[in-house]
Amino acid sequence: MDSKQQIQKLSDEGKKIYLSHISADPVIFGFESNELKVLLVKMNYREKWMLPGGYVKKDEDLDDAVQRIIKDRTGLTDVYLHEFGVFGKKARSEEYFVEFDESHFSKQRFISIGYLALYNPSQQDLIKDELSQSCEWTNINKLDELDFAMDHREIIEKALLALREKIAIRPIGYNLLPEKFTLSEIQKLYETILGKELNRGNFYRKIKNLGILKKLDEQRRGGAHKSPDLYTFDAENYQKALENGLTNW
Amino acid sequence: MDSKQQIQKLSDEGKKIYLSHISADPVIFGFESNELKVLLVKMNYREKWMLPGGYVKKDEDLDDAVQRIIKDRTGLTDVYLHEFGVFGKKARSEEYFVEFDESHFSKQRFISIGYLALYNPSQQDLIKDELSQSCEWTNINKLDELDFAMDHREIIEKALLALREKIAIRPIGYNLLPEKFTLSEIQKLYETILGKELNRGNFYRKIKNLGILKKLDEQRRGGAHKSPDLYTFDAENYQKALENGLTNW
Repeated sequence: MDSKQQIQKLSDEGKKIYLSHISADPVIFGFESNELKVLLVKMNYREKWMLPGGYVKKDEDLDDAVQRIIKDRTGLTDVYLHEFGVFGKKARSEEYFVEFDESHFSKQRFISIGYLALYNPSQQDLIKDELSQSCEWTNINKLDELDFAMDHREIIEKALLALREKIAIRPIGYNLLPEKFTLSEIQKLYETILGKELNRGNFYRKIKNLGILKKLDEQRRGGAHKSPDLYTFDAENYQKALENGLTNW
Repeated sequence: MDSKQQIQKLSDEGKKIYLSHISADPVIFGFESNELKVLLVKMNYREKWMLPGGYVKKDEDLDDAVQRIIKDRTGLTDVYLHEFGVFGKKARSEEYFVEFDESHFSKQRFISIGYLALYNPSQQDLIKDELSQSCEWTNINKLDELDFAMDHREIIEKALLALREKIAIRPIGYNLLPEKFTLSEIQKLYETILGKELNRGNFYRKIKNLGILKKLDEQRRGGAHKSPDLYTFDAENYQKALENGLTNW
């Protein structure tokens, strides 16, 4: 199928299958080797990067649509998502589709719902769809160098603010850290997401005060210095903190 | 205009003016006389209560749409809103419009974007629109007794959870309390929103630690007991806390 045929097929399918005016854009952050990444795709015959978003089927619940879109475009399944913002400026998606025919499904106005996840990239391999030439974890420090479709840079920036706010009120780390980890490793996770260094003493005191860590009777061996204590998450307290939040009046 | 004419007019206008499949529902909470209320409307010729929601114009930014909808349906202007959730189950709005003609604008599937505000009801009078028989502040303790349209009870419940989460990370009180207030008065505000009593010593310590209060050299006179100190908000620190959040790593 050449570019023109693929674009026409997209429009025909769109009008038949999908709701008009609504799209969903997942911002999936990945924590790997002490780097924060974000999952981006680039469509065939196009140069700009974008979020692996899509449309909602006429007979599909919105929550199901988002999971299907992620699976179709990236191969990832069971990503735990959190809606963080809606992007509804009237001309937000016009420019990217400027050369499409006026009647093309993608050419109409779309209000996009932003979803956020924090994920461990080593858990599943990426599989790009037939529409895309690339599907990649990209370091967030590299985003300035990239050209983005539509308002996707703004969506990623808002998602990062929402993620930073979220880690003030919900625990993180489960599935991102190894089962046994040092306080220095969990500090590095927080520092990477927050994009700044934290005072070690303060951080250790605060993270212990949350009551979600269990100190093990084991140390990490092998370093040149004193072997640091190993910790694991207290599954029950972690789950409670996920549900009730960390901050209380 | 009778019921049938009004319903037909709604549909004709809808198709001409509004985007299909998207609606917005504002949940405006009001704090008044130590009670938490929510702003509800009831349409002409209908029995169920609903949020003062509406549709988005084809040529209107989403943020502008929400302000217009609130002004049109309740008379309130300049309400500071925060998007808190999207309601996208496929059959969520069908039942309420069951007796409408299949081709009616309101009969299609709508995904609704939920907005949240905390407001002082004494600031502006309510003005209902021509579609509504009622527009009222309703005590949230009375919601169980009411019959709600669509999933609006669920939307209000989610908004209340979001509000309770929000006050863990952002300051509240400005425009809700008098300019000078006692610690007991601000405690009552938090207790009313949280729906539970708080330990006085803990609360006083925590609220003072936020750094958003300024103790005045004045006391509240007139009670039988010791005259309590009066406080006011430190405008600069309050603004900073609004922008940066209260919780930090």
